[in-house]
Amino acid sequence: MLKIAIVGVGTVGQAVADLLEENRKVITARAGKEIRIVKGVVRNLARSRSVNFPLTDDWRSVVADPDVDVVVELMGGVEEAKEVVEAALKNRKPVVSANKALLAYYRYELEVLAGEIPFAYEASVAGGIPIIRALRDGLSANHIESIRGIVNGTCNYMLTKMIDEKAPFDQVLKEAQALGYAEADPTFDVGGFDAAHKILILGSLAYGIDAKPEDILIEGIGHLSEDDIAFAKEFGYTIKSLAIAKNIDGQVSLRVHPAMIPKKHMIAKVDGVMNGISVVGDKVGETFYYGAGAGGDATASSVIADIVAIARGECMPMLGFKHAMEGGLKLAAKTDIESKYYIRVLVEDIAGVLAQISAILAQHRISIETVLQRKKRVKKELANLLLSTHEASEVDLIEALEEIGQLEFVKSSPVMIRIES
Amino acid sequence: MLKIAIVGVGTVGQAVADLLEENRKVITARAGKEIRIVKGVVRNLARSRSVNFPLTDDWRSVVADPDVDVVVELMGGVEEAKEVVEAALKNRKPVVSANKALLAYYRYELEVLAGEIPFAYEASVAGGIPIIRALRDGLSANHIESIRGIVNGTCNYMLTKMIDEKAPFDQVLKEAQALGYAEADPTFDVGGFDAAHKILILGSLAYGIDAKPEDILIEGIGHLSEDDIAFAKEFGYTIKSLAIAKNIDGQVSLRVHPAMIPKKHMIAKVDGVMNGISVVGDKVGETFYYGAGAGGDATASSVIADIVAIARGECMPMLGFKHAMEGGLKLAAKTDIESKYYIRVLVEDIAGVLAQISAILAQHRISIETVLQRKKRVKKELANLLLSTHEASEVDLIEALEEIGQLEFVKSSPVMIRIES
Repeated sequence: MLKIAIVGVGTVGQAVADLLEENRKVITARAGKEIRIVKGVVRNLARSRSVNFPLTDDWRSVVADPDVDVVVELMGGVEEAKEVVEAALKNRKPVVSANKALLAYYRYELEVLAGEIPFAYEASVAGGIPIIRALRDGLSANHIESIRGIVNGTCNYMLTKMIDEKAPFDQVLKEAQALGYAEADPTFDVGGFDAAHKILILGSLAYGIDAKPEDILIEGIGHLSEDDIAFAKEFGYTIKSLAIAKNIDGQVSLRVHPAMIPKKHMIAKVDGVMNGISVVGDKVGETFYYGAGAGGDATASSVIADIVAIARGECMPMLGFKHAMEGGLKLAAKTDIESKYYIRVLVEDIAGVLAQISAILAQHRISIETVLQRKKRVKKELANLLLSTHEASEVDLIEALEEIGQLEFVKSSPVMIRIES
Repeated sequence: MLKIAIVGVGTVGQAVADLLEENRKVITARAGKEIRIVKGVVRNLARSRSVNFPLTDDWRSVVADPDVDVVVELMGGVEEAKEVVEAALKNRKPVVSANKALLAYYRYELEVLAGEIPFAYEASVAGGIPIIRALRDGLSANHIESIRGIVNGTCNYMLTKMIDEKAPFDQVLKEAQALGYAEADPTFDVGGFDAAHKILILGSLAYGIDAKPEDILIEGIGHLSEDDIAFAKEFGYTIKSLAIAKNIDGQVSLRVHPAMIPKKHMIAKVDGVMNGISVVGDKVGETFYYGAGAGGDATASSVIADIVAIARGECMPMLGFKHAMEGGLKLAAKTDIESKYYIRVLVEDIAGVLAQISAILAQHRISIETVLQRKKRVKKELANLLLSTHEASEVDLIEALEEIGQLEFVKSSPVMIRIES
């Protein structure tokens, strides 16, 4: 029997307990032994819970308990979770965690501490999709060329709604909040921070890159308008919030931002709250993984998969590398991006506007691919100028947009969306 | 260092050697040790090969060689491959195999023989897609409700062509043969046998079902016509050759056949030679996996992933179950299927035809959902009557089609395609 303690009995913790009970027979057959929850740790013992294992509010006693084989950390947060996990590892207990924030900040410290002790975290990225295993094990023979993931269901639900129903951001956000898909303070999701945590984890598995959220480019979806969506539709794109990791000539770009992507891509077909991740390996080519990225049951599915692996005697390296690669890869600078760009500029509808804007772009070595002009319905004298460019340097583009923003006939800061081809 | 022997240095064996050389640094960093090919076994030593390891035509000496740590079986075929693998396991050497036919027939015998010795076979199903790991490890907490896979690139390439270009089967087959996507004798692929081997393997991982190819329903794609494709298009379906494993009330249905599937499904979006597999778990919901199903590099990617896992010290159960499930699942009879059906009947274009056919269907408890009639361009007096039914029992359907086929105005045996909803 494998005896586990669950630290944090919230939605996911409860789902793990229920799943273990409900699918007990098949899990036991696959694990080779029974998995039993012997202790749960909660903050508030007074709150009533329908669990059939003893509860305590003292995690220190639990991680030191010789009767606990595995510590399952589902409490969330960063610093206290780190203490819990560190204490468990120091007591040589394998750890299972769904805590992406903890891993985004401390995965390399924890890897060192864990050593040969299993530390599994399948649930931390893309919920029920076994993407950690795919990258760590399934594609281990490949140099990873790129990862492009839709790993935040809130953003994807909102963008799908904005595109399908031509609804504005604010209205869709209210609907998402009403349905429980978005938090009261939605910043963590719609600001791209949740996805950033996840791409840092995948970036370690693919490239061995040690970086923290503040080191990478993170852009939310709050600035997207219906004109952007109309432009995307007209030119065969859809707009998705992507978490991206790419090897560009030995520099690794890690970033989260909205992007226009061709509709025919598998990843463009991921709609609603679902998650999808495209991984391109130099030998295997494109592989793609799809499924539920959140929710108690899907997350519990991955948490228990990790527990089963530990029961079977798993011995995989936590971050995919058994030892560092000689001449390893470096993180690229945040603005070190070459891309095609879509630009939206709100202008007075007068002659000569396009000439001046394209002149500034040309001065910065940026050439235009397509142009579309949309009159504003509310203010007749204003128009949105929508452009797409050929491949350009982001540093050049930012400078050009800066200049364009200062033109007298430009009525608000230009908006830019990267085009992923 | 991990020393491997490759038994069978054909396209895949050569690709494995090349990949190991080309990606040596990253593979060593991930595996934790160098992986070196110390011996290759070939049938014909006279044929020149560009490999930098010694070759022999005597596999018996290689599987017994104390200097060989892992035996990689890439020779194909069944009986001799079984001898090789058995000899390796008896010498307590881990085995990596890409041999789906071997596994389709002997996986349970080999599992017993392997015991705790690793036996890995990621490359045997869907080439570069890590579907074995997904099922064996990533979804281990779930009862698998269904697997629906496009696992034969030849069939999928041909069907995509037939649909996109309205080209007939024979013409597309010739093109596929010219491009090397189909063999001179295409029966193994277009007859569904290749896919059957693969679904037997996945059926073991999902359900622990011991069955052989002759135990399951296998239908090819040779009988599909452009009228079937036109009907599919009109009603929002596409036609794919699917390998299916489904748990229906504790009976497991394993089968390969063409099916109409709604265009919005992820699996409907898998085109050309690509593979895609949808797996529905009771807790995780639908997950979906996509990538290259064949080709030297994609297959080598999975073969080496298995070798890396062994180098790291993998200890997963070969077929996903550490011990049998009490009250385990049983294989359903071949005809024990409930489905919606599409039916095509070539009839004389006279009054009363539909009335008689629908009367026969009704007698067999089959109700019609939609009807479409298409005149034959060549013979004006003939028409194809195209029907779809509500859910019905396959036994009933087969009896009804038998009767319909005997009607005087019916000019050829009715054709049936199952509709997967």
